[in-house]
Amino acid sequence: MPQAQGPVRVALIGSGRMGSFHGETLARRLPGATLAAVADPAPGAAEKLAGTLGAPKFFTDAAAAFADPDIDAVVIAAPARFHADLVVGAAAAGKAVFCEKPMAITLADADRAIDAANAAGVVLQVGFNRRYAPDWAAARALLDNGTLGTPRLLRSVTRDPGGFDPSRVAPNTIFLETLIHDFDTLRYLNPGANAVEVFATANALVEPEWKDRGLLDTAVVVVRFDNGAVGTAEACFEAAYGYDVRGEVFGSGGMATMGDGRKTGMVFSGAAGQLADTARGDQELLTSAYIAELAEFVEAVRTGGSATVNGEDARAALEIALAAAQSVETGRPVLIAELAK
Amino acid sequence: MPQAQGPVRVALIGSGRMGSFHGETLARRLPGATLAAVADPAPGAAEKLAGTLGAPKFFTDAAAAFADPDIDAVVIAAPARFHADLVVGAAAAGKAVFCEKPMAITLADADRAIDAANAAGVVLQVGFNRRYAPDWAAARALLDNGTLGTPRLLRSVTRDPGGFDPSRVAPNTIFLETLIHDFDTLRYLNPGANAVEVFATANALVEPEWKDRGLLDTAVVVVRFDNGAVGTAEACFEAAYGYDVRGEVFGSGGMATMGDGRKTGMVFSGAAGQLADTARGDQELLTSAYIAELAEFVEAVRTGGSATVNGEDARAALEIALAAAQSVETGRPVLIAELAK
Amino acid sequence: MPQAQGPVRVALIGSGRMGSFHGETLARRLPGATLAAVADPAPGAAEKLAGTLGAPKFFTDAAAAFADPDIDAVVIAAPARFHADLVVGAAAAGKAVFCEKPMAITLADADRAIDAANAAGVVLQVGFNRRYAPDWAAARALLDNGTLGTPRLLRSVTRDPGGFDPSRVAPNTIFLETLIHDFDTLRYLNPGANAVEVFATANALVEPEWKDRGLLDTAVVVVRFDNGAVGTAEACFEAAYGYDVRGEVFGSGGMATMGDGRKTGMVFSGAAGQLADTARGDQELLTSAYIAELAEFVEAVRTGGSATVNGEDARAALEIALAAAQSVETGRPVLIAELAK
Amino acid sequence: MPQAQGPVRVALIGSGRMGSFHGETLARRLPGATLAAVADPAPGAAEKLAGTLGAPKFFTDAAAAFADPDIDAVVIAAPARFHADLVVGAAAAGKAVFCEKPMAITLADADRAIDAANAAGVVLQVGFNRRYAPDWAAARALLDNGTLGTPRLLRSVTRDPGGFDPSRVAPNTIFLETLIHDFDTLRYLNPGANAVEVFATANALVEPEWKDRGLLDTAVVVVRFDNGAVGTAEACFEAAYGYDVRGEVFGSGGMATMGDGRKTGMVFSGAAGQLADTARGDQELLTSAYIAELAEFVEAVRTGGSATVNGEDARAALEIALAAAQSVETGRPVLIAELAK
Repeated sequence: MPQAQGPVRVALIGSGRMGSFHGETLARRLPGATLAAVADPAPGAAEKLAGTLGAPKFFTDAAAAFADPDIDAVVIAAPARFHADLVVGAAAAGKAVFCEKPMAITLADADRAIDAANAAGVVLQVGFNRRYAPDWAAARALLDNGTLGTPRLLRSVTRDPGGFDPSRVAPNTIFLETLIHDFDTLRYLNPGANAVEVFATANALVEPEWKDRGLLDTAVVVVRFDNGAVGTAEACFEAAYGYDVRGEVFGSGGMATMGDGRKTGMVFSGAAGQLADTARGDQELLTSAYIAELAEFVEAVRTGGSATVNGEDARAALEIALAAAQSVETGRPVLIAELAK
Repeated sequence: MPQAQGPVRVALIGSGRMGSFHGETLARRLPGATLAAVADPAPGAAEKLAGTLGAPKFFTDAAAAFADPDIDAVVIAAPARFHADLVVGAAAAGKAVFCEKPMAITLADADRAIDAANAAGVVLQVGFNRRYAPDWAAARALLDNGTLGTPRLLRSVTRDPGGFDPSRVAPNTIFLETLIHDFDTLRYLNPGANAVEVFATANALVEPEWKDRGLLDTAVVVVRFDNGAVGTAEACFEAAYGYDVRGEVFGSGGMATMGDGRKTGMVFSGAAGQLADTARGDQELLTSAYIAELAEFVEAVRTGGSATVNGEDARAALEIALAAAQSVETGRPVLIAELAK
Repeated sequence: MPQAQGPVRVALIGSGRMGSFHGETLARRLPGATLAAVADPAPGAAEKLAGTLGAPKFFTDAAAAFADPDIDAVVIAAPARFHADLVVGAAAAGKAVFCEKPMAITLADADRAIDAANAAGVVLQVGFNRRYAPDWAAARALLDNGTLGTPRLLRSVTRDPGGFDPSRVAPNTIFLETLIHDFDTLRYLNPGANAVEVFATANALVEPEWKDRGLLDTAVVVVRFDNGAVGTAEACFEAAYGYDVRGEVFGSGGMATMGDGRKTGMVFSGAAGQLADTARGDQELLTSAYIAELAEFVEAVRTGGSATVNGEDARAALEIALAAAQSVETGRPVLIAELAK
Repeated sequence: MPQAQGPVRVALIGSGRMGSFHGETLARRLPGATLAAVADPAPGAAEKLAGTLGAPKFFTDAAAAFADPDIDAVVIAAPARFHADLVVGAAAAGKAVFCEKPMAITLADADRAIDAANAAGVVLQVGFNRRYAPDWAAARALLDNGTLGTPRLLRSVTRDPGGFDPSRVAPNTIFLETLIHDFDTLRYLNPGANAVEVFATANALVEPEWKDRGLLDTAVVVVRFDNGAVGTAEACFEAAYGYDVRGEVFGSGGMATMGDGRKTGMVFSGAAGQLADTARGDQELLTSAYIAELAEFVEAVRTGGSATVNGEDARAALEIALAAAQSVETGRPVLIAELAK
């Protein structure tokens, strides 16, 4: 429970790239929150980030943060495989939870996390950032007010700027960590519909020599929904022009396109033609979305509200990701209903 | 053989919507050609169009046009199921042939058409209009000069403006007549690669009550190529905003996007925001491409050149279309190599 | 008078850069016209272009073309200072006249040209190309149907791609030959209003060392109209990115913007960002407008219609140009009513 | 002087529309600042806003805020005619000053304000928001790194969304309060150059019946700079499509265009065409710029830095505004050097 009048006291779990950004947001960008602690098992990591951001406490064990009565909520930005256990631990300690995607990497884990939050009656929010990006929210508004009509075809694209280390990419990362955003986006823009079947094809086109070791760096996934709409999600780990997040929803009333990739609206016309600079990373392109999702979380904690992107959303996107992985393995479309539970 | 100095004398076979446009181009837009005759089996149809366009001859039987020594070439715009026989007949008579897509609707027919043209030594060009649209040609130029690098992901979209009569849509029209353009486009923008496997999902979302009678008005097709690139083609027979033809090719060097759907570059900013009018039909959006393809054909005939979009291209796109249809039937991806020949 | 059934027989007067383009249009792009003759005083010039384009006759003296009974109409693309006399000569001989801008460079000459055409009862059309460019025509349609409301502020820009020879630029060329287009555009987009006052400032910014010899290569002109609207016209003889023609009309109902400078709709996203190629010259950017204006002329001649852009339009734009030149000389705004007549 | 470690304690002077926004920024959006007090002479106004934003103190007299030792800095958002005196008062009391534009409405007042800040050695920053808008900053970067070359032609546009009360618009508001932004923008994008001469034309086109009472709601101003570049600034108090701030700088190296007016990047394609929603007010369009300018101010106060947009900039923009007003009065261009000092 937050203090009566003060800001929500948040512990950050995980001090890596995304954790650091969330930490900064909690410490410096959200007057309603304070960064109360940082936890990270890597020697010195939590202390260092806590020092930089002025957080009063740091831990190597997340459990210590969960046990701390001066902490109201946690933001989990640890590696994906630890997410479910961390959600369960935090919820059991009565902390509100914001968990980076994917909330879990198995359906059983997802169910455990959801159950734990329900049992504790705490907020459980998941970091599907695109819902907080202005273009996507505007498209959803056109669905909600009927302008777009019934969705027929959807598209969601994520392309990373490259520079990854292929030796450190776990199998199915492209589905579980990258395309999970797109799977949620397809669901977000096809409100009330459920995925029925998934067909995926994937390959190592950026680092072809790693294909034999299981790397998948480029993928296309087709998702058939129970309202007949078909969504296409595609991802690649390297785009020469930077970070690229775009989407499209085409319904009976028209089409919305989201994402123009531009860094600013300034266009330079020179000897080469008209040039608009592009965003080079997610934190640059989605800055306001990353802040908005934490703002909503903090507000939910403060007011006793509930999350609009919750554990069930995380589970539903995970189903599509697991089906996509299975489709690549088998070379066949996979029914969501077939998934081992 | 064309007259020594005069324009190429072309007979138009088929006087429907597309035939009329091609007829007008031959009669009025291409100084190098004359519309020498119109053939159409419908009573009075050929006579009427010939009168309108000033063509000196008209026939109800295409064979009469083939037999006419004053005709150098034919433009076939009859219903798709007659195309292959018409190509064979025209080629056998020594006429150069421009055939609207699809050149054939079975692989056996495609082979017959190709063989007939080869045997006769006549030009055989196929109406894949997008190759002649400036955006697509510009994208291909970026592939040819290496700027785009190796293709990884491609997309091609066709959306018609609606208003079709579902009772008159033959099965698999969406693959054989609509998406055939997109299949060719994917090949055009992935030069030298061959399709290996096709997965398709399709539905009747515009006219759902016709689904039981076999209507497919909305489809998504994933095409895997032998260079690892994956293309997505999608189509719908109705878009609220008009006629929509767009594409994307994403390679190791960057991305090209094609098609902005705008009628002109004029933008009106009013109470509703910024508004750009969209093209409402193919002949409006692709006017210059339709003229350019006939101009190239006429020039090839005149100079004894060969077609850049030929029977082999038509056959390769047809393979993808047939595999897509089979994929929808079976619910499984289909290897091009599996296709019954 | 044109032949009963045949194409309009046109003589081209002037075989330079623009004359050659118009000649090609008459010879090859307009089935309703034939290029019947070319006239140019430069030794061999008319013969050469006539040969290239298949025109049956060529003259060194335009008067010979005027006297030829086999010629129905003339297209004048000679140097500007000869325009008025050529219009008068052609009209006196009963030929329909299309004259490149400026139709005249003094008001007295403009009046002579108008009077001659009126006396002869021939079509007199002036080459204000922007009226035939799709963006501008679409903006005008929004004025005509009331969408834009009453114009308040207008803008018209012309920037040439550079590469000019400063020694060959006559004084006030920027007003009389370049901005004359923009002055007409401001009038076209402020229908029914008349220019009242003009303020201009100009300089040699591209070739500063030529300023002392009277070169003006960059200019801004403010035109106040009698309905209160204010138009701004600006020009520069060199733009690093090519040929740039844009405009804007802002009225009580909203704003229309015209001209995006893009060569095609294809956008390349690469290491530098998003890149759209730009048109590099007027004949590339305005191809369709150049053809459309001659098509309208030929149609007016054939049907006995009248020109929509006529001598009075040429005179009105000239008034603004002369006032702009006088404004630069005097450093003061100049009333149209002050102009020596 | 700020507290050793704590946030900069800022008093807000003026609690109107813009004051409220700045107050919110100080209270809720800038962790480095606190809103320490609100001052406003209107009965109850300061108390009300202080209550809403949690500011501990409120005053009806700004002098009380200046005298308060617990206040480090002031943000002045009172009516323009009081600005100079408030700057002088705050500076004399040793407070750092952020002053909304215009800092003064006479040159003598501007000089007094500058002198007071200099004498006190306090930061004096002026609210020229466009310098903090990403498009404009990006254009300036292209000037600073030489890409744009030497400026030749510049344009800056401001259009308000309308709904103003013509009875409350002081004479020359369009120059002193609206176009002052554009005058600063022209200077910002022509670095190091000074305005030499100004020609302006203005009218009451939105509310024509108020023209006789001196209303000017639409204006065009041409500014000639000492490096030969010519800038055009235009404004109108009502645009049907909302709030419109755009600009262009064209130099020897190319052109930068700034401002696309779009609310988000989402585009809806529907029966009317492609539609992008537009921003409807300055606080919506320039949110981040308004925050960034205060962030820079707070940082300057905290670190003892100086303002990048200072009293001299305010004075230079005021010169252009006063010359524009004089030009409208006299109907003639006005030299900056002529201005009564």
